[in-house]
Amino acid sequence: MNTKNTTTCHNLILKLQQFWSQHGCIIMQPIDITVGAGTFHYHTFLKAIGPEPLNMAYLQTSRRPTDGRYGQNPNRLQQYYQFQVVIKPAPKNIQLLYLQSLKNINLNPIQNDIRFIEDNWENPTLGAWGIGWEIWLNGMEITQFTYFQQIGGLNCDPVTVEITYGIERIAMNLQNVNTIYEIVWDKNKFHQITYKELFYQNEIEQSIYNFQHSNIHTLSNLFNQHLLESERLLLLKPKLIVPAYEHILYATHNFNLIDAKQIISNTERKQYISKIRKISTKIAKCYYKFRKKKGFPLLYSRQNKNE
Amino acid sequence: MNTKNTTTCHNLILKLQQFWSQHGCIIMQPIDITVGAGTFHYHTFLKAIGPEPLNMAYLQTSRRPTDGRYGQNPNRLQQYYQFQVVIKPAPKNIQLLYLQSLKNINLNPIQNDIRFIEDNWENPTLGAWGIGWEIWLNGMEITQFTYFQQIGGLNCDPVTVEITYGIERIAMNLQNVNTIYEIVWDKNKFHQITYKELFYQNEIEQSIYNFQHSNIHTLSNLFNQHLLESERLLLLKPKLIVPAYEHILYATHNFNLIDAKQIISNTERKQYISKIRKISTKIAKCYYKFRKKKGFPLLYSRQNKNE
Repeated sequence: MNTKNTTTCHNLILKLQQFWSQHGCIIMQPIDITVGAGTFHYHTFLKAIGPEPLNMAYLQTSRRPTDGRYGQNPNRLQQYYQFQVVIKPAPKNIQLLYLQSLKNINLNPIQNDIRFIEDNWENPTLGAWGIGWEIWLNGMEITQFTYFQQIGGLNCDPVTVEITYGIERIAMNLQNVNTIYEIVWDKNKFHQITYKELFYQNEIEQSIYNFQHSNIHTLSNLFNQHLLESERLLLLKPKLIVPAYEHILYATHNFNLIDAKQIISNTERKQYISKIRKISTKIAKCYYKFRKKKGFPLLYSRQNKNE
Repeated sequence: MNTKNTTTCHNLILKLQQFWSQHGCIIMQPIDITVGAGTFHYHTFLKAIGPEPLNMAYLQTSRRPTDGRYGQNPNRLQQYYQFQVVIKPAPKNIQLLYLQSLKNINLNPIQNDIRFIEDNWENPTLGAWGIGWEIWLNGMEITQFTYFQQIGGLNCDPVTVEITYGIERIAMNLQNVNTIYEIVWDKNKFHQITYKELFYQNEIEQSIYNFQHSNIHTLSNLFNQHLLESERLLLLKPKLIVPAYEHILYATHNFNLIDAKQIISNTERKQYISKIRKISTKIAKCYYKFRKKKGFPLLYSRQNKNE
């Protein structure tokens, strides 16, 4: 591997930030709570609600305990990075923009086999679903592309488009390596660091924890406490919407850990999901009402182009 | 305010990344767990341990519940952003580099009053302390500069230097505004977003939650469960060091929430801190042994300069 011209993960993130900034997106920071996808960040979940325009992009650490493979799988991890773009209303040329963003990171759509595979997306805990595609690069999913139809049980009007890039898999292609662990995360004239040096030990330890040593009683206790706390905060006046939402994120992560143990029945699993959805849809409704009362002010100022 | 030449928070972060990358730092992503400071990220806490060189920089969301002011204070928040630089061994010219980094973000050390105020740092929960300075910009703290002497109760040899920039306060100066809420976070040719648009409502809701509505029984329950879980994971073979450390972070955040309520006695407060320190120092020792057994391999590859 010639590291000289390597597009590192860090450079890939910078290039995506730059591209989407040029196309109007405000660049944000990740949420500092463990989530399973960028969709759970309140910049997506809450802000996709209501009529106000939205243009944001951010990187989000994503943890999916069931996807752990003890560091042995070349392209599957229990923790990885998503670059998330959310735009409302969805621009008509968004698919073209997406393809341009790939060219911009030197991913040539002619030399590579890029396919849009119909894949309608659903997130039952968030009461959310959408129509869209998985985007495959030479047979491997690298992006989820979704037009939200509902979020928090509310119809999306106008529709938000969400584009979620898998940073590691795109970096594998750009760096021409066969495993995630060989990817160069970042480099400068003194040092470079590979994905293995950064995350291999973590993948092993978290897989052992998630599958073998997490404790179902502790997890369900944590789940219940966060769920009750969330519910309670929605009964206050004023309702504490963001703190309530954050407790739902904690509850959801604990449910994901319970799910990874594969010891609960399908019925119990559905009950957990339904408990989360009941509250996340309530949060969505409260947020909508809160914003409506304020007259749906813009989420950000329009830039004066003549400045 | 002329927004055309504004150094936004996002640009400030990019410039700091670029500067420290040029000086050898690997750019990392924040930890996806709520922490009170960048020091709690395992890229600082764990990696400051042992003799291997370290050169990293990252942005970290920092939450300090007691610092909430219901969105009414112009320069104090319960949630803000730290840009964290950690280098081991501490370079001899590090103070000069820091001043260069200020020039690089157009903060002129001649036009502004920049003072190094002796302020030895201590973090009792992490069993950590160091000698260093607060750096004041026209009378307001904008950076903490520390040479770690101990971390996790272990002597630091060689010494790691930690530089923590407060993004918002620096942006206030660069944008010449009198309150954090007027800062422009990011802008592009279509939109711009202010700190108020992004975080004002959150500051109000989190302050109400932290001071008035969080529940002491729930918080101490969560604290105890995470603490016990952390302790348990260190008794396993192999020890699950990172998962154990993450549970300590959860316990610590719950302690910070308890502390914000100002209803526990000084003695109880010390007991909480001592419980956390007992385990965080044990984690540090376990990590040191684990690395020693492996022969302290480099945390990253050296870059071949001839490439």
